Amino acid sequence: MYACPVKRQKGTRMEYLEQIGRQAKEAETMLRTLGSAHKDEALVRASKALVSGTEKILQANARDMAAARDRGMSQGLLDRLALSTKRIAAMAEGLSQLAALEDPVGEVLSMKPRPNGLLIGRKRVPLGVVGIIYEARPNVTADAFGLCFKAGNAVILKGGSDALHSNTAIVEILQEALADCGLPQTAVQLVASTDRQVTERLMKLNEYIDVLIPRGGAGLIRTVVQQSTVPVIETGTGNCHIYVDASADLSMATEILFNAKTQRIGVCNACESLVVHEAIADTFLPIAADRLAEKQVELRGDERAMAAESRILPASEEDWGCEYLDYILSVKTVRDIEEAIAHINRYNTGHSEAIITRDYDNAQRFLDAVDAAAVYVNASTRFTDGGEFGMGAEIGISTQKLHARGPMGLKELTSTKYVIYGNGQVRP
Amino acid sequence: MYACPVKRQKGTRMEYLEQIGRQAKEAETMLRTLGSAHKDEALVRASKALVSGTEKILQANARDMAAARDRGMSQGLLDRLALSTKRIAAMAEGLSQLAALEDPVGEVLSMKPRPNGLLIGRKRVPLGVVGIIYEARPNVTADAFGLCFKAGNAVILKGGSDALHSNTAIVEILQEALADCGLPQTAVQLVASTDRQVTERLMKLNEYIDVLIPRGGAGLIRTVVQQSTVPVIETGTGNCHIYVDASADLSMATEILFNAKTQRIGVCNACESLVVHEAIADTFLPIAADRLAEKQVELRGDERAMAAESRILPASEEDWGCEYLDYILSVKTVRDIEEAIAHINRYNTGHSEAIITRDYDNAQRFLDAVDAAAVYVNASTRFTDGGEFGMGAEIGISTQKLHARGPMGLKELTSTKYVIYGNGQVRP
Repeated sequence: MYACPVKRQKGTRMEYLEQIGRQAKEAETMLRTLGSAHKDEALVRASKALVSGTEKILQANARDMAAARDRGMSQGLLDRLALSTKRIAAMAEGLSQLAALEDPVGEVLSMKPRPNGLLIGRKRVPLGVVGIIYEARPNVTADAFGLCFKAGNAVILKGGSDALHSNTAIVEILQEALADCGLPQTAVQLVASTDRQVTERLMKLNEYIDVLIPRGGAGLIRTVVQQSTVPVIETGTGNCHIYVDASADLSMATEILFNAKTQRIGVCNACESLVVHEAIADTFLPIAADRLAEKQVELRGDERAMAAESRILPASEEDWGCEYLDYILSVKTVRDIEEAIAHINRYNTGHSEAIITRDYDNAQRFLDAVDAAAVYVNASTRFTDGGEFGMGAEIGISTQKLHARGPMGLKELTSTKYVIYGNGQVRP
Repeated sequence: MYACPVKRQKGTRMEYLEQIGRQAKEAETMLRTLGSAHKDEALVRASKALVSGTEKILQANARDMAAARDRGMSQGLLDRLALSTKRIAAMAEGLSQLAALEDPVGEVLSMKPRPNGLLIGRKRVPLGVVGIIYEARPNVTADAFGLCFKAGNAVILKGGSDALHSNTAIVEILQEALADCGLPQTAVQLVASTDRQVTERLMKLNEYIDVLIPRGGAGLIRTVVQQSTVPVIETGTGNCHIYVDASADLSMATEILFNAKTQRIGVCNACESLVVHEAIADTFLPIAADRLAEKQVELRGDERAMAAESRILPASEEDWGCEYLDYILSVKTVRDIEEAIAHINRYNTGHSEAIITRDYDNAQRFLDAVDAAAVYVNASTRFTDGGEFGMGAEIGISTQKLHARGPMGLKELTSTKYVIYGNGQVRP
């Protein structure tokens, strides 16, 4: 039943994908009505199987690492590709944590009678078949399977070719665990081809795939958005702003800014731009610059900002739209909150934005008018995260407005259907 | 400010679309925080303006009709294109009904404190800029504007070229009404080009458009799904089934089948296929055939069905997947409910499916296992409709699983955002 390894691939690559698609649909039909207890049992078993399969996974990972080193992969990427006993244990722990979460499927969100006696309910159901296209991190393989499976979905995984052996080993272990529980192994399948055309075809497999979620850098996401005919959930980049209002508590503003900029620089909810009310620029910018100097953050600002603080370098137009993911921060001064809102709405990526203020009206205005997945008053943008939001687990952070916006947990991996109870009603 | 008429189009057609996109985004920024009272006032004014503009609309429509007749348009399409005082009054009535509906925007769907004191809420917000691509019916112009506007969205309309004069007249009247209320006219804009490349570019205007909704035939919808890089909500075709179980009340089954097949044949929630448990085929099919003969419905069935009722003609494999939109019905016999479910899930389009039964377990099983936007027990599939579901108005019926499934009303034209109230929280 296992359809993944290249060595078993028969016929053309398109037949191969068709087969994966058909098998996923078959598995989905079974998962659609599978009870929570059965799903949780399988997750726990898969978790244990990952731990006992540690040696197999590490051997496969060693092959990927050796090949990557031979190709001259950078240290940063090698770090993301590398697995260890500890990382495998964390993957396993992720699956058993999922087993403990509430099953989103089957909840009836509303049910109301109509005047004609029809009782119309809206029920949460799985999305169906979810495709995940991702890059080098092999831990995504187990995470994505766990989240999709818990929400009743079959999943088709297309990982980076650098991680092919690691991913294959992980998926084999997950499939064996499913089989041990009497469940279809094809609930998780890996597209084990490194052929670019296969990925292109995967993005057009509308007959079998209900939604595609790309996980990775901006380039990957753009490619999927542009080429896919299957509906996509865009998980995205974050050009996140912190606006320090005239009435802000400046020490709070400094600490929040320091946290949002430097606590972890390579993530999408890190702060990339500081927006400052000009009335406090002269007092606040030197304090902020002092604090950020502790981490050697480079500041690039407009003329007013440079006049207030000599360590600020000149910013170009490009800086306003830049997600640095580095120890760099752009600094924009504004005359009032409306200019701050307009600047943010022009340059942001719809991820996370914060205002630091003591003014009630400005706080409310900012929350209403800023267009982003998460808008904060007096807190760090770094909290935009499924775990921090109490979702228990996260498949990504959506920066689009359709279907899901912000951190996506189990509920975001479901759809709904209408269930209608009648007793002979016909339409007049 | 009005950007629509071709005569004012400057520069290339791409600049033209860019301008429409930019203007829609500007309008959206204003609509995002517009209060309900103001929106409702504008809807009422637009409703009155349509009535007082009847003569202008009819003149424009007469030009479209004359040109269409010259091109030899079929009577059916001419009927859809034609406006009358009565049809314009119905469009106006639609807008004033929308004013009376509850505003979906601004509702906080949940708000909970986290252990660190952050108060995290999820608030309903407009989608932003909605693009509607539709065919000949000019009444869609006012309907789509009204729904999008009430939900706080700016709308870009691309109607069929056959209706260009009618649509232009309607949009001009709507824009004047908006201006009279001090609102941006660009909250509704018509792409007044008949150039196919403009439509193709519109489908890739991700920078400005948050979602595209195609309304029309299967060909239009397929084109938009395949070519668009903007997220699409697929409103779709309906190959709807009625399964008559062994325990069904046969007179109820007959009346529901007759209603679902013949009450209105050209619609997506009409029944296209009858699935019958073989245990009752001999008794039920002659009764059903008698009733359907009143409307000269042609029956095409499998061998078992033909053996039970001589008026049934042989069906081909193609029949099972066909949305006839005509007085034709396919008839499939099955050994049990599981075969019925498998048949339906294989050939349906995910729209509306019904079971007629007196068996409790079979009713529940059918509701759970059939994969469709709306699943009925003992009722006609014809009820899948925003009005019948109590939504007040409908922009279409989604047959995809992402974002919205089934009839889409005002809520389905919104997104959400997280609003987070803090008091200095930073991420440890």
